[in-house]
Amino acid sequence: MKNTRIGIIGAGPSGLAQLRAFEAAEKKGFDVPEIVCFEKQENWGGMWNYSWRTGVGKYGEPIHSSMYKYLWSNGPKECLEFSDYSFDEHFKKPISSYPPRPVLFDYIQGRINKSNAKDFIRFNTTARWVSFDEDTKKFTIILDDLKNDKTYSEEFDYLIIASGHFSTPNMPHFKGIENFPGNVMHAHDFRGADQFKDQNILLIGSSYSAEDIGIQCHKHGAESVTLSYRSSPIGVDWPEGVKEVPLLTHFDGETAHFKDGHSENFDAVILCTGYQHKFPFLPDELRLKTTNNLYPDNLYKGIFFNEVPQLIYLGMQDQYYTFNMFDTQAWLARDYMMNRFEIPNKEERRKDIDSWLEKNDKLKSSVDHVDFQTDYIQELINLSDYPDFDLNKVAAMFKEWLNDKSENILTYRDKTFKSVVTGTVAAEHHTEWMDELDDSKERYLIREAKEKELS
Amino acid sequence: MKNTRIGIIGAGPSGLAQLRAFEAAEKKGFDVPEIVCFEKQENWGGMWNYSWRTGVGKYGEPIHSSMYKYLWSNGPKECLEFSDYSFDEHFKKPISSYPPRPVLFDYIQGRINKSNAKDFIRFNTTARWVSFDEDTKKFTIILDDLKNDKTYSEEFDYLIIASGHFSTPNMPHFKGIENFPGNVMHAHDFRGADQFKDQNILLIGSSYSAEDIGIQCHKHGAESVTLSYRSSPIGVDWPEGVKEVPLLTHFDGETAHFKDGHSENFDAVILCTGYQHKFPFLPDELRLKTTNNLYPDNLYKGIFFNEVPQLIYLGMQDQYYTFNMFDTQAWLARDYMMNRFEIPNKEERRKDIDSWLEKNDKLKSSVDHVDFQTDYIQELINLSDYPDFDLNKVAAMFKEWLNDKSENILTYRDKTFKSVVTGTVAAEHHTEWMDELDDSKERYLIREAKEKELS
Repeated sequence: MKNTRIGIIGAGPSGLAQLRAFEAAEKKGFDVPEIVCFEKQENWGGMWNYSWRTGVGKYGEPIHSSMYKYLWSNGPKECLEFSDYSFDEHFKKPISSYPPRPVLFDYIQGRINKSNAKDFIRFNTTARWVSFDEDTKKFTIILDDLKNDKTYSEEFDYLIIASGHFSTPNMPHFKGIENFPGNVMHAHDFRGADQFKDQNILLIGSSYSAEDIGIQCHKHGAESVTLSYRSSPIGVDWPEGVKEVPLLTHFDGETAHFKDGHSENFDAVILCTGYQHKFPFLPDELRLKTTNNLYPDNLYKGIFFNEVPQLIYLGMQDQYYTFNMFDTQAWLARDYMMNRFEIPNKEERRKDIDSWLEKNDKLKSSVDHVDFQTDYIQELINLSDYPDFDLNKVAAMFKEWLNDKSENILTYRDKTFKSVVTGTVAAEHHTEWMDELDDSKERYLIREAKEKELS
Repeated sequence: MKNTRIGIIGAGPSGLAQLRAFEAAEKKGFDVPEIVCFEKQENWGGMWNYSWRTGVGKYGEPIHSSMYKYLWSNGPKECLEFSDYSFDEHFKKPISSYPPRPVLFDYIQGRINKSNAKDFIRFNTTARWVSFDEDTKKFTIILDDLKNDKTYSEEFDYLIIASGHFSTPNMPHFKGIENFPGNVMHAHDFRGADQFKDQNILLIGSSYSAEDIGIQCHKHGAESVTLSYRSSPIGVDWPEGVKEVPLLTHFDGETAHFKDGHSENFDAVILCTGYQHKFPFLPDELRLKTTNNLYPDNLYKGIFFNEVPQLIYLGMQDQYYTFNMFDTQAWLARDYMMNRFEIPNKEERRKDIDSWLEKNDKLKSSVDHVDFQTDYIQELINLSDYPDFDLNKVAAMFKEWLNDKSENILTYRDKTFKSVVTGTVAAEHHTEWMDELDDSKERYLIREAKEKELS
């Protein structure tokens, strides 16, 4: 298939999953297409590639990663485990269920490091503009080699958009915010709680960013943490020093006024107000336009752009499942591009999409959401040779996790789960999460080893 | 000339100067071409259009403005006055020589507000990609209407790049900076000194940003301000609480180590390390590639791109002169596009550029720099009908300003100068700059009026 060219935009978990999927087929003896992956950062890992920078990077491109120091997985690692590369295979011993970012980044890299994947990736290269020729059915991508300051274009038969959707902040304006004297930032630019020690922090939002950044600021010594919600609070049993309040209406200097009429002074404001799906390099007829939800419209099987199915979007869903979902998507996309999976005509695809949208519309609780995404992934697994795993057990772990969080937001990360890939029960971490202020891989693993020696 | 189409990218001081130049020709009875100006922000003013946001804007595009609260002109307004629209005409009374940002923004808008310039500007519209057809000699620009999420393309005979070069941070890495616990930002993201009250601040750099942000932090209550220089210090007589030290070598936690062997702890770091000329929407054969200097290479008369002179860059020089330089450039560009100014062939243009580059190479002092840019502007004035003004007197004011700053960095803004456009001597501001903590136009003008009543 060397006459077929595949372009991948982004070498994060989704783009790397796509490279891995082709590698797996090649190992099974299949002839695979020519692949080029474009990554604007210096390294792979996407969101997991932490940057100390905020705003724009070395070459003036918007910073992709929203990662911050002291980020620990906010879901059990057993819910995201690759079914073709277990945590046991990578770490050679059981580790805890909620590892910090550097440990998860190490795991992601472990699977792909053994292959020649890096040969397919052009780093420091950003896609400037994509066009699609209806006659030749080819995509032309204009690329910008940032390091060498050179632009050029290449043609592809298939284009994979794997550039993520947690990079472009959604940042609403609040009256008076321009005169708030303290630090104002979006969660995207948050790099760790140290600078907020002894401060009174206002977080706007009620999703994962607000919950996690709020708890981190509390853990690392903020004087107080206030979370302001639009429609409904997160509603867990917050520790002393953390509280939820209704929506901010406006600022008057350093004073924030809320919908319930009360007001308070703050030192800093962090807008945890979500992200936009943003594809500046695509013409609008090829752009996925969606809010963050479990089944973005116009994507057949959640990945094939219905207007032009040679255009494939990976990982564009709101996510309970992450790495393993990207894998199931990438495996199916691969089979389509290798003519091993046929897709029906546009109308049939539309019907299939609509049936998922209908189901999505009816979901009410978080448990419903978990079940919906579980069903979606089960369908994908049934359609490719991605190694099967017990999705019902994973769904059950997600529900347990939801329960753990609502029981105690400070201790849920001390729980352990059992891998559906290997059957291994996670190790208890040597230190309770609330007492663990060091998130380095070295401390995580060395101490884990010492602990083992002692026991 | 309605068959000639002119595209302008950016509606800041340079882009607005270009619109004004055509307006002036039209008023004199000339038939002017069709003009479209694209501005990615919601409003005009470019750098002068303050945004509370950092990182990316409402629609996910990199924030253009590097403006911050409490920014006062750092040069006499008499050195940047439009010669066709005086400060007297706008404010109807003398004002001080160093007004704050909102007052200067008001002045810029005053000239253009009277015209129908807004009709030519498409706001919330960013240029994604430009191509030039060697045969038709036309530019095709792909545009992104951010508000309506629509892309489209249009053809132009001439293209004006007026997108500035103080928007894309240059941000070098320093060993250990990723573990510095406090706030780390580039000057581009600085929005005012309030949040640094009582803190020990490290500024890296020795140009205008470091000088101005450092002095603002001192004025607004920072505990200490330390400026770290690479090659040579700013070298003025700093007040107590502000000092200059050699280059930072690395961080160890919150401790900064310097080239001279000493170390200190800091609460926050602001990288005042300059900006990159960045044109992501241009193919590299049309891109101006230059450091920040007084005569960027490949620009005939400082504006016409030598390879394709229909491509015109405004304001790409390092700047002593600002608004009035953009004007002289825009007037000459207009005359070229209206076939009123002929340019020689490529080789002749090359020779002319080289002669300026040679002179530029020999400059030593700041006074030399002022004289060089004065000569450049005098040449442009001689080539168009932009209203002449006494450039020697302006150059003399720049030299006085350099002297004032080195004499007292805290009081130089209390000095007054005489307009070369109207002969008016600036008013003394009602409050000494060091005591003036409010930079609003209202306070600046109302109190000015009260002062007048009292005297």
